[in-house]
Amino acid sequence: MVLGILLERRRKVWHKPASITKNSSDVVKSGSNHVYVNRQELERCVAACLEQAGAPPDHSVLVARVLVAADCRGIPSHGVNRAEMYCQELQAGLIHTIGYDGTGDDGDDNNSSDPTIVRETDSIANINGHNNLGAVVAQYAMEIGIQKAKATGVSLVVCHNSNHFGIAGYWAQLALDQGLIGLAMTNTSPFMVPTRAKSRAAGTNPIACYCPAAGNNDSFQLDMATTTVPVGKIEVCHRQNQAIPLGWGVTASGTQSTTDPTKVMSSGGLTPLGGLEETAGYKGYGLNMMVEILCAVLSGCQQVGPDVPPWRADRGVPVGYGHCFLCIDPHQFLPNNEDGSSSFPQQLAHYLDRMRNLPPAEERLAVLVPGDPERQEEAWAAQQGVRLHVNVAQSLRTLVRDLGCNEEMLLPPEIRNLPETNHVAPHPFASLATDASTTAK
Amino acid sequence: MVLGILLERRRKVWHKPASITKNSSDVVKSGSNHVYVNRQELERCVAACLEQAGAPPDHSVLVARVLVAADCRGIPSHGVNRAEMYCQELQAGLIHTIGYDGTGDDGDDNNSSDPTIVRETDSIANINGHNNLGAVVAQYAMEIGIQKAKATGVSLVVCHNSNHFGIAGYWAQLALDQGLIGLAMTNTSPFMVPTRAKSRAAGTNPIACYCPAAGNNDSFQLDMATTTVPVGKIEVCHRQNQAIPLGWGVTASGTQSTTDPTKVMSSGGLTPLGGLEETAGYKGYGLNMMVEILCAVLSGCQQVGPDVPPWRADRGVPVGYGHCFLCIDPHQFLPNNEDGSSSFPQQLAHYLDRMRNLPPAEERLAVLVPGDPERQEEAWAAQQGVRLHVNVAQSLRTLVRDLGCNEEMLLPPEIRNLPETNHVAPHPFASLATDASTTAK
Repeated sequence: MVLGILLERRRKVWHKPASITKNSSDVVKSGSNHVYVNRQELERCVAACLEQAGAPPDHSVLVARVLVAADCRGIPSHGVNRAEMYCQELQAGLIHTIGYDGTGDDGDDNNSSDPTIVRETDSIANINGHNNLGAVVAQYAMEIGIQKAKATGVSLVVCHNSNHFGIAGYWAQLALDQGLIGLAMTNTSPFMVPTRAKSRAAGTNPIACYCPAAGNNDSFQLDMATTTVPVGKIEVCHRQNQAIPLGWGVTASGTQSTTDPTKVMSSGGLTPLGGLEETAGYKGYGLNMMVEILCAVLSGCQQVGPDVPPWRADRGVPVGYGHCFLCIDPHQFLPNNEDGSSSFPQQLAHYLDRMRNLPPAEERLAVLVPGDPERQEEAWAAQQGVRLHVNVAQSLRTLVRDLGCNEEMLLPPEIRNLPETNHVAPHPFASLATDASTTAK
Repeated sequence: MVLGILLERRRKVWHKPASITKNSSDVVKSGSNHVYVNRQELERCVAACLEQAGAPPDHSVLVARVLVAADCRGIPSHGVNRAEMYCQELQAGLIHTIGYDGTGDDGDDNNSSDPTIVRETDSIANINGHNNLGAVVAQYAMEIGIQKAKATGVSLVVCHNSNHFGIAGYWAQLALDQGLIGLAMTNTSPFMVPTRAKSRAAGTNPIACYCPAAGNNDSFQLDMATTTVPVGKIEVCHRQNQAIPLGWGVTASGTQSTTDPTKVMSSGGLTPLGGLEETAGYKGYGLNMMVEILCAVLSGCQQVGPDVPPWRADRGVPVGYGHCFLCIDPHQFLPNNEDGSSSFPQQLAHYLDRMRNLPPAEERLAVLVPGDPERQEEAWAAQQGVRLHVNVAQSLRTLVRDLGCNEEMLLPPEIRNLPETNHVAPHPFASLATDASTTAK
């Protein structure tokens, strides 16, 4: 049943109406570094790649949706850019695809490779992800967490034996869509240098917290790495030969903040939020450990902290990430309004607008609340299509070809028609063999 | 019954055995800025002051215990130093003491001024603090939260209509004492300048997270303001005429980081964790808002964020703080060890030691985990008594006198025998009329 729908979707991708086909190479020639692609077409293309690499069709569709959502929110480091790595992991057999025979038939929707609950009460669960794609595990966990929070007011669901789950905010959004507060966290592979340490020993371990607010689809949407910046920001400066601000990263010795992005990438690492010890980097380090404990120790992960394998396709073993999801039903905490509606969204909307309307330090830069920039990016993406850096788009085309997919049928025209290059620039993370960032902004 | 015990305790304070009386003025004369005081004596002295100022005896004992605990943990800004402000609030009628007739008899242990549950399920509660001292509300909330977490694996208890509750870690510790993970948060009065804003509009809004680890009373103990530093660190530099590091605070314009502590205190404000926008201060600001939402919006506080009254005795209205407590029973998430013991504490101990044993960037500075410095301070306090700055000790003596208490009977000898000064230095926060810091380190 599910399979039928999925195959139907794929046919729609591959038999794209000619009317929306257009040549976008002018964009590149004119000097722009980006192309704009139809969201559904892009999702279907990425899904087809993942499926071709070995993922079950329904898993592929879900992961593609999560990746493209990141591009739409203005977080390209966690978007389509990641498809290549996921495919390499699948092809290397690092992610569980048992039951999938390569024909698109995964046999049983509830086969032994699906995530399972190993412990639970009315309010909590611990889930074995059975080494599925992280998004598959997270989706399963959040559905359980949402149900339990609706029943008892709060739920805490943790997962072990999982993988990269994309932007943490995607999972918090699932709670938000149900009128709940959602928190999502994950541990990741080491890229951060802890306070007083010499080398990388902690992930970027993000925290997302989304809360529903009334009016015009408003909400609080925090989604942040517990490092000062994600790897992507260092990489952008590296590519553009720009210095980074002091405080973002350290050199190989661990003690010196540096303005040289190359040193951070090659031998140093990211600082925890707060930067060096003098500016309270130990707090970001503490938050980072809190995420590690709630995700990896509480769920029973095999490897924790410095011992989590690097996120590389040649690592030979599963990464075994852990996640943690907290769902809260605010309506069970507060009395309703007189008309029977919940009072929480109105009160939150009032607070958010109160902050937005604070007198700004600089007239041209209004005070924002978490989620405002990303909502703007989403609005733009809905209008003009998903914005992809040309390098990322060309890498996706190369991926489609390398996987032996039919690029004529599969690639959105804006990507298919990009000029050929002798040297496809490595995608922004190609030089970061141990990049473990799964975090937003 | 409770009253009888309390009065008995007070008699013990006031009739201190002569054997432990000693003259500590030598300490001051020799140039040290600190005196060391017996913990129980200090608690009883502070409790007597609070009771004299109008708090019920059992409330006074609890609050004194919380304040002295902060001094023992090396967080003097949140210790005995705060007794004066609490007494002023009580005397100004800003904190509810209804039912207390000044004789030490508060009439009914369950009188109308006690905190009450206004909404609850098996896993959550919302508590009206009825404007009691914050510690009284927090104690009530944590007892409920611990019970519920033991029953269902997780609990979330929020409070409104409360006051300053001291160090957030004290409340997380209550969960830890029961083998649980405890998180404690509170909103506070504005002292932080949000990213892109011009002036103070958010509290220091701390987050504490304690997690039990096996072996030698080990644990993870994070307790941090979501500002870069608490007010106390700025004040210390101000008193010592030292520059502060760039990134701790901003000037009145909100845009400029400054090294001048006076500018931060008089007209500027604290930065969120991360510092300026360039170094990801928006993340600390986002965390700060998350705490505000979970504490104040979710519990239904009357004033939120920028509208929370300043923490001053002349404010004329209750501050109406909100708190949020999350308790997690880790043993319900994981299978037990073969001997039936919980596996979580062992796994956490392994992770903590793994971090402590990372190669340090500087040989003389070992990598720490949150709680290590405070545990060391507690060990010292247990050995040598509670360390108080002379200014704080002299202020306490002045408070005892101003309240009309019997200083001969009440003051620990190390404080009573301090040299008299014509000018008792203002306690470290006296010049910070709008100080709202309730946070550790």
